[in-house]
Amino acid sequence: MSLIVQKYGGSSVATPELIRQVARRALDAKNQGHQIVVVLSAMKGETDRLLALASRMHPQPSPREVDQLLATGELTTASLFALACQTYGERAKSFSGLQAGIQTDNRHQRARIVNIDAARLRSELAKGRLVAVAGFQGATAGGDVTTLGRGGSDTTAVALAVALKADACEIYTDVEGIYTTDPGVCDRARKMDRISFEEMMELASLGAKVMEIRSVEFAMNYNMPIHVRHAHLPGAGTLICEEDTDMEKKPVVGVAYSKNEARITLLKVSDQPGTAAKILGIISASGIVVDMIIQNQSANIDPNSGEPHTDFSFTVPLSDYPKALELMRDTAAEIGAERIVGTDNIAKISLVGVGMRNHAGVAAQMFQALAREGINISLISTSEIKISCIIEKKYTELAVRALHDAFELHQA
Amino acid sequence: MSLIVQKYGGSSVATPELIRQVARRALDAKNQGHQIVVVLSAMKGETDRLLALASRMHPQPSPREVDQLLATGELTTASLFALACQTYGERAKSFSGLQAGIQTDNRHQRARIVNIDAARLRSELAKGRLVAVAGFQGATAGGDVTTLGRGGSDTTAVALAVALKADACEIYTDVEGIYTTDPGVCDRARKMDRISFEEMMELASLGAKVMEIRSVEFAMNYNMPIHVRHAHLPGAGTLICEEDTDMEKKPVVGVAYSKNEARITLLKVSDQPGTAAKILGIISASGIVVDMIIQNQSANIDPNSGEPHTDFSFTVPLSDYPKALELMRDTAAEIGAERIVGTDNIAKISLVGVGMRNHAGVAAQMFQALAREGINISLISTSEIKISCIIEKKYTELAVRALHDAFELHQA
Repeated sequence: MSLIVQKYGGSSVATPELIRQVARRALDAKNQGHQIVVVLSAMKGETDRLLALASRMHPQPSPREVDQLLATGELTTASLFALACQTYGERAKSFSGLQAGIQTDNRHQRARIVNIDAARLRSELAKGRLVAVAGFQGATAGGDVTTLGRGGSDTTAVALAVALKADACEIYTDVEGIYTTDPGVCDRARKMDRISFEEMMELASLGAKVMEIRSVEFAMNYNMPIHVRHAHLPGAGTLICEEDTDMEKKPVVGVAYSKNEARITLLKVSDQPGTAAKILGIISASGIVVDMIIQNQSANIDPNSGEPHTDFSFTVPLSDYPKALELMRDTAAEIGAERIVGTDNIAKISLVGVGMRNHAGVAAQMFQALAREGINISLISTSEIKISCIIEKKYTELAVRALHDAFELHQA
Repeated sequence: MSLIVQKYGGSSVATPELIRQVARRALDAKNQGHQIVVVLSAMKGETDRLLALASRMHPQPSPREVDQLLATGELTTASLFALACQTYGERAKSFSGLQAGIQTDNRHQRARIVNIDAARLRSELAKGRLVAVAGFQGATAGGDVTTLGRGGSDTTAVALAVALKADACEIYTDVEGIYTTDPGVCDRARKMDRISFEEMMELASLGAKVMEIRSVEFAMNYNMPIHVRHAHLPGAGTLICEEDTDMEKKPVVGVAYSKNEARITLLKVSDQPGTAAKILGIISASGIVVDMIIQNQSANIDPNSGEPHTDFSFTVPLSDYPKALELMRDTAAEIGAERIVGTDNIAKISLVGVGMRNHAGVAAQMFQALAREGINISLISTSEIKISCIIEKKYTELAVRALHDAFELHQA
């Protein structure tokens, strides 16, 4: 008998009828002889409804009370799911994060799981029961309810799978798996059968929306394979697992894009040691996360001072752009920048693949493919398994299709 | 500094705006130098919404899951209340029953509180915080969420007041206090300043809707005075407390009525020892609670058998009437009854007052008052502090007004 953790997302449990359908699916798995733990998200729209209530009470509701309030959403689904199972004769029971023994630190709204005391769940499984757990939530050692931040129900599922030494962790969602790129942008996008943890993390952090990066990182750290599947369709889905060294890997597995960044450039910054540190210190002190950073090799000499100067660019999340731009303008003199310019008319296009490590020329091939379409590149950054370029926003979809074709990602 | 437990009912917290108003009221009390614990009901309509969801999942949802689901209603109000307090600068915190240390037995949907570990609440109060507790709920020693049944939030408030050795327990509701009778039926109904625990229990069990009987019983057992007040109006309300022996009591303090019963009569039952026990055994075995029981003195001899026979009547809740009638008809032969008749065209009118103990003639005065209006009495039952009569349903309001006048209850 194997133990399977299944997680169903908010759109898969949006109505009582859909909850009944996924209960049927979970019970089918149980009837095949498996032990089943199901992690439930809040019904689609419920979290927004609760947040709206909180906002009506307080303009900036306290994180502890927001967590207390939001956690009722997933708990409601878990109870309804257990009741649906009971309709089919299964003695299912629901549990909140607190009841399931999911202990977190006390960082409300973005808590991290520090320990899982799975004794209660194990005891219920041993009695032959299906166990339904409210996702997205835990509790501090002191018993305060916490939530795990975006994608938190995925994290709950992976963490429970690890704690229970599950044989599989299945994430049921509203897509059929992980695609080589956004099928809405490129109709040659192909569902992958497998993808490595590292590749999935890069794709997740680069704007692919299926899995949140934290849950993939958690799964990678404990080597817990994740099976992404459609909640209401059959099909094998995509397995996220350790890199498979036996197979010859293609250098690139996927193309990701993000329109959610803005670029700030400081012109004619004096090229002194510590300038970059000073700029980034100001930005990070205000809680803004910088993504790409580019400083060109100093090539110019200021005609007045005789000092070398350079241009310095970085990107920030779109939501932080106005604040970051204001910060830079306020401190331009201090930094020694002649002028500050910025734009949100950009997109980031990224290629991801662990095979890149062993294949030279991926970057060159990428730049050529973009050049053939007349797309100019304004920033480039690379890591071991990805290459990202900033381009003008209007070329986003064209660039995705061009790169998907250039690397023949439609072919397995 | 005194410690006050306040409870706000569902209609008093029906909207975010009303929650804000009662938060303001609780904070006013805190600003007068008191420690404040607030117990919240679910927003009006929320419990019904959750029950409807549960019914959509399962025709007879399991009590454990219903409790898990329903408890989210009060918890939502508690969080929103805490957030409202924070708008006014108060560092309030909300707690579920489980978090507040309210331990119950495991009888889901009608659990009884067995212990309260108030350490967490005491610690928060000691830090100067206002504490908001979700009413109506607790948890078993094993951590399963339970609910306390009808009027459960009142019970939560009284039990917390006892556990915390509070100086006062205030129940805020949508009426101005306890009235001598239903003001909707009798416009001379008068709000009482005080009423004894025992009188309140009789009034609660007889159909007055302000306080549930269990919470009054709990308060009486621990001698915790309850102050019933209107949530959104000023005014002194009614104090429910120990009988005040100093005052000369009127024999009757209130008139209650109930249209929620039905009467079953077994005609020509053989007047043998054990017949009544047999009848009531059948009824109680099916979980039906019998209220009034009347067996007339045997006056007749059966012409055939020469045995004495009699008529036997009892009343049951209206909702159990069809089932009880069927049970009696099925077993008429076994009981030795010639015929079974029943009617739901009845009402129960009751007079309540601890002063009745020392005043003869209350019953006679009651019967005379009803007779003056031409109202026939079909059953009578009495206890130390109440007299109840069954009359024809259409006379209910007339009887209430006649008795209110006869005992001059409009005068304090």
